[in-house]
Amino acid sequence: MDIVMEAGALNAFLKAEFPQIGDSYSIDHVSQDGLVARLSVNDGHLRPGGTISGPSMFALADLAVYCAVLSRIGPVGLAVTTNASIDFMRKPVAGRDLLAECRLLKLGRVLAVADVLIRSQDEPAPVARSSMTYSIPPRG
Amino acid sequence: MDIVMEAGALNAFLKAEFPQIGDSYSIDHVSQDGLVARLSVNDGHLRPGGTISGPSMFALADLAVYCAVLSRIGPVGLAVTTNASIDFMRKPVAGRDLLAECRLLKLGRVLAVADVLIRSQDEPAPVARSSMTYSIPPRG
Amino acid sequence: MDIVMEAGALNAFLKAEFPQIGDSYSIDHVSQDGLVARLSVNDGHLRPGGTISGPSMFALADLAVYCAVLSRIGPVGLAVTTNASIDFMRKPVAGRDLLAECRLLKLGRVLAVADVLIRSQDEPAPVARSSMTYSIPPRG
Amino acid sequence: MDIVMEAGALNAFLKAEFPQIGDSYSIDHVSQDGLVARLSVNDGHLRPGGTISGPSMFALADLAVYCAVLSRIGPVGLAVTTNASIDFMRKPVAGRDLLAECRLLKLGRVLAVADVLIRSQDEPAPVARSSMTYSIPPRG
Repeated sequence: MDIVMEAGALNAFLKAEFPQIGDSYSIDHVSQDGLVARLSVNDGHLRPGGTISGPSMFALADLAVYCAVLSRIGPVGLAVTTNASIDFMRKPVAGRDLLAECRLLKLGRVLAVADVLIRSQDEPAPVARSSMTYSIPPRG
Repeated sequence: MDIVMEAGALNAFLKAEFPQIGDSYSIDHVSQDGLVARLSVNDGHLRPGGTISGPSMFALADLAVYCAVLSRIGPVGLAVTTNASIDFMRKPVAGRDLLAECRLLKLGRVLAVADVLIRSQDEPAPVARSSMTYSIPPRG
Repeated sequence: MDIVMEAGALNAFLKAEFPQIGDSYSIDHVSQDGLVARLSVNDGHLRPGGTISGPSMFALADLAVYCAVLSRIGPVGLAVTTNASIDFMRKPVAGRDLLAECRLLKLGRVLAVADVLIRSQDEPAPVARSSMTYSIPPRG
Repeated sequence: MDIVMEAGALNAFLKAEFPQIGDSYSIDHVSQDGLVARLSVNDGHLRPGGTISGPSMFALADLAVYCAVLSRIGPVGLAVTTNASIDFMRKPVAGRDLLAECRLLKLGRVLAVADVLIRSQDEPAPVARSSMTYSIPPRG
């Protein structure tokens, strides 16, 4: 699983193809076995009590897995999530970004599987964990 | 599991407590074993190719389960999702609202479990299915 | 999704191909949108306190989905589970068989998705719910 | 999360309380953040083609999480699985034991969450991944 797109290329791809997700979601760096994605938290992601909404965390995990797949197969727009599971375990720390550490566990011919741990920046205890399956389009 | 909040009360609660979700998400009606929620699709929910984003569908399923729990226990703000799984099965029909049919399978002392089928309006084949667990706060 | 194998043919197939699952698991009947499978509970499935083990319920759900797929595509041995989620919600009633009601939600070219409700016989409240994805081999 | 039961104590507990799971499942060692469990594969776990059955892998993951919880809270028999998700990613290597590496991600007052990677012994690529939630009984 050689890396074919680094963080800069992934962020440029996201900006061009998914303008509606805005500036909040980005890739920090591509790693040996996956990557780290970031949610720059703003008021739009918050729920009463100051916690971050579940759908915002789901979106972060989904983006992390999508970009982890692209980082290995290149900028194909057609990979789609087929299955996701997520556990919400702790309240995020107020006022901190969320970091999603994604591990690519399988990159097969038609399916990719990855898991994700989401933490508030500089906190060891995970806020959420997720695993996702992507269906990937036939490659050349 | 008697119904203690009908669709009107649930929608008023959502508007007051979750102003940031806007006008897109609402409850159509409360049913014998759950309820039906609606996503009034607009451009903000779309991905390239005109499909509805995964996080928008996740948010719809999450809202449906949350409101199904409230419809039986009343307007407690503190119920939180602890686990969710979702399968994305078909592309939604362009230009149609999404309807989420939620069945409350368990409403226990501390945990509630429900499942959800999401369909494009007037289409029989489901677009997505989801199941969720909510942790519910101690009740008087 | 026409039915190509009824309960008798499915049970004969299971006996021939999966002798190690023994006599406990069987198909009751194939339905319009899926089928009903049965676990004839014996001591081997029990845990301390008389409850049925999680793996026995997982096996029942898995068998139900596998046979629901076969009931529509015929006796191909190569369909494999790729993802499963299961919620255990209530203790089964002691001394009763378990019935698993399976709905086939999608039968695509390469993936099938189904969900399952497991109940103690003659009890309305579900003991467990599950959803599974099967990868299906290319068909002629 | 101090360790209160090591591998020897866990294996003795399993033998005394769960005689029906037999000699196949055991704990290799308790680690800093979880433990490693082992399935000593025999013919009873195999499916046609020599692969290990899904329910056997589910049972291994379930046992790993259960024992990881007990390793931190002691031998309470009443912890029960409430939710599990599992992805089957690769065929196990024939004739090798399976090792399940479990990480305890949360050990709360009423819920514990853990994930598990299952590999054939001496193989780096995972065969399956799982995450589970356990409901834990009130502690003194």
